[in-house]
Amino acid sequence: MIYLDNAATTKPDLQVFQVAQNYICEQFYNPSALYAEGYNLHCQLKQIRKNVLNLIADENNYEIIFTSCGTEADNQAIFCGGKRGNIVTTLGEHSAIFSAVNEAKQRGLEIRFANLNADGSVNVAHLLSLVDDKTSLVSVIHVNNETGAINDINAISEQVKRKNKYALFHSDGVQAFGKMPFRLSKNVDLYSLSAHKINGLKGCGALIKRKQLIIKPYIYGGGQENGLRSGTENVFGIKFLELCAQKKYANIMQNYSKVEELKTSLWNLLDKNLFTKISGENSSPYILTVSAIGVRGETILHEVNDKGLLIGTGSACSSNEKKRYSRVILACGIKEELADGVLRLSFSPENTLEEINSAAQILNQTVKNRKEIMS
Amino acid sequence: MIYLDNAATTKPDLQVFQVAQNYICEQFYNPSALYAEGYNLHCQLKQIRKNVLNLIADENNYEIIFTSCGTEADNQAIFCGGKRGNIVTTLGEHSAIFSAVNEAKQRGLEIRFANLNADGSVNVAHLLSLVDDKTSLVSVIHVNNETGAINDINAISEQVKRKNKYALFHSDGVQAFGKMPFRLSKNVDLYSLSAHKINGLKGCGALIKRKQLIIKPYIYGGGQENGLRSGTENVFGIKFLELCAQKKYANIMQNYSKVEELKTSLWNLLDKNLFTKISGENSSPYILTVSAIGVRGETILHEVNDKGLLIGTGSACSSNEKKRYSRVILACGIKEELADGVLRLSFSPENTLEEINSAAQILNQTVKNRKEIMS
Repeated sequence: MIYLDNAATTKPDLQVFQVAQNYICEQFYNPSALYAEGYNLHCQLKQIRKNVLNLIADENNYEIIFTSCGTEADNQAIFCGGKRGNIVTTLGEHSAIFSAVNEAKQRGLEIRFANLNADGSVNVAHLLSLVDDKTSLVSVIHVNNETGAINDINAISEQVKRKNKYALFHSDGVQAFGKMPFRLSKNVDLYSLSAHKINGLKGCGALIKRKQLIIKPYIYGGGQENGLRSGTENVFGIKFLELCAQKKYANIMQNYSKVEELKTSLWNLLDKNLFTKISGENSSPYILTVSAIGVRGETILHEVNDKGLLIGTGSACSSNEKKRYSRVILACGIKEELADGVLRLSFSPENTLEEINSAAQILNQTVKNRKEIMS
Repeated sequence: MIYLDNAATTKPDLQVFQVAQNYICEQFYNPSALYAEGYNLHCQLKQIRKNVLNLIADENNYEIIFTSCGTEADNQAIFCGGKRGNIVTTLGEHSAIFSAVNEAKQRGLEIRFANLNADGSVNVAHLLSLVDDKTSLVSVIHVNNETGAINDINAISEQVKRKNKYALFHSDGVQAFGKMPFRLSKNVDLYSLSAHKINGLKGCGALIKRKQLIIKPYIYGGGQENGLRSGTENVFGIKFLELCAQKKYANIMQNYSKVEELKTSLWNLLDKNLFTKISGENSSPYILTVSAIGVRGETILHEVNDKGLLIGTGSACSSNEKKRYSRVILACGIKEELADGVLRLSFSPENTLEEINSAAQILNQTVKNRKEIMS
């Protein structure tokens, strides 16, 4: 089995699991309990918070709120950050933002969508033209989950603040965190991340927040996470996230080069008569999006699945929307015929060049056969 | 170490862990992925939904939404169920409801709190007097997490519906689910539960909902959980919950009798000159709340902790509120002197009578010593 759908989810790190399972088997206490065993977990969480935060931000200026997933973090950013006037976002957002802003619209906010460039990155000039003095929040995805396009959120947030210094700036960093060298500049107020995209567990994410920024919680209760996210802390999942994140950042350039090599090799091996590249030059090496011209992506996905290759056709989360074409791919200006053939191949440093060779062979052969049958 | 704080959290079931860890080590796929491995998980989740639901409700009339915790389920019930007019609830709610309704008040809803009886159960006549034609939601905790008082929510919901058939009825069942024989009657529209209170994992809960009832999601995104709770499903946590719940219901009367014996034994062994009982006769056998008259509960908690006994002073979640007296205990009409000495002793069927004997000895001795020092 060759797993090239690492943008959908990653295989949990089994070495980390060996360590973290202690928080299931032994240290199972409620971190809010007042006895030593509970308080000890409370203190451990405090240290974990620092450790994760320091990987990407200055702990003097930022704090971290552990959430149940990237989607929840995105929802907190939208519903607690965008309180009035308009929200400016992009046509390239993950459904966690896209659906949340549509709900915010129902609640009376105006939503403005910035256009995309052909590679899926945001058209920054258009985005900036949408920001005015009524903008309460701007949300721009860091790495587009369907094309891998990288938005320079530090630069964009600076430009946004120049137009409206009161507008909050949020970025969904789910496909960036732990995958590329990056640190939050002071203009990014809120940043979402997810554990299961970096070999952590489903059911754990975080919202990083500028310390001075006061926002409401989205989930109310016992006042955990400094009052910003209630519910008994998922200590096992949070510890798992910490260990994975530390491992990722310790090897970040090595991993980056490795997946870059995998991505380049795969593209080189794909038959250019059968595939066209959708991912642009400035895209994450973790994602290679192509279109199998003239054939349906979903058909290819199932056929290569039978041959032991697991790939995506876009955002896994969008499969629930049951739409034939991805709204993000169409927003890149890609015609329906090409949009229909989209395949997302996404990598992990654990993938090997041998797997890439086999994957290319399977993909070339499958699309070629399919076309022959169709013609 | 003797663990008598099972109402705060329970030790995860290690037999269940042996089985469920397959969803970390092998079946790690995204259930929204279209290939066979993803679809297979999607189908497994469908079956798990049925299996959990059937333990407590009729699957023809109810559906289940997996959430990240009981608190999130409670929040969804309040914010998506209580949309206008007033919300009627009780002074005995867990902070997940108490804080959420206070936020709902900020958003313009009127909140009405029903008084409690001395044992912590709701004064039903008072509750009903608060329900009128402007009531959009009534929320009554099933088993009070601080005193163990059981509210007969099937009967109460029927009476509520007789006063206003359009009012939704929600109950926080976190301390009841898997612990006592009970099935949802048709008048209960929404019911919250949590995995980590029944030897499952932190970070997993559910909201059971009457099928015909249409409510909005609270977390928006990829449309998971039939569009009612987005975010990649925590398959490991959900499978863990299913297995624990099935085990609990398979042994529900046996467990009930066991903890009843533990609770009775402990109360019998406690020195009545030192302790007074707060839990009433009609209370869950899983919770024994007492007051160590004239001494501070938190002091006793720390002293018995040094002797290897782990107990609570009330809701662990409330420890973040940093208030000296529990609002729920005061609402029972208990004087501050007694409220100050509250200890919550909560059981699991895994506790033994030997542990109960030692716990009673430790508690009697500790309170006696403390009183001697103070006098």
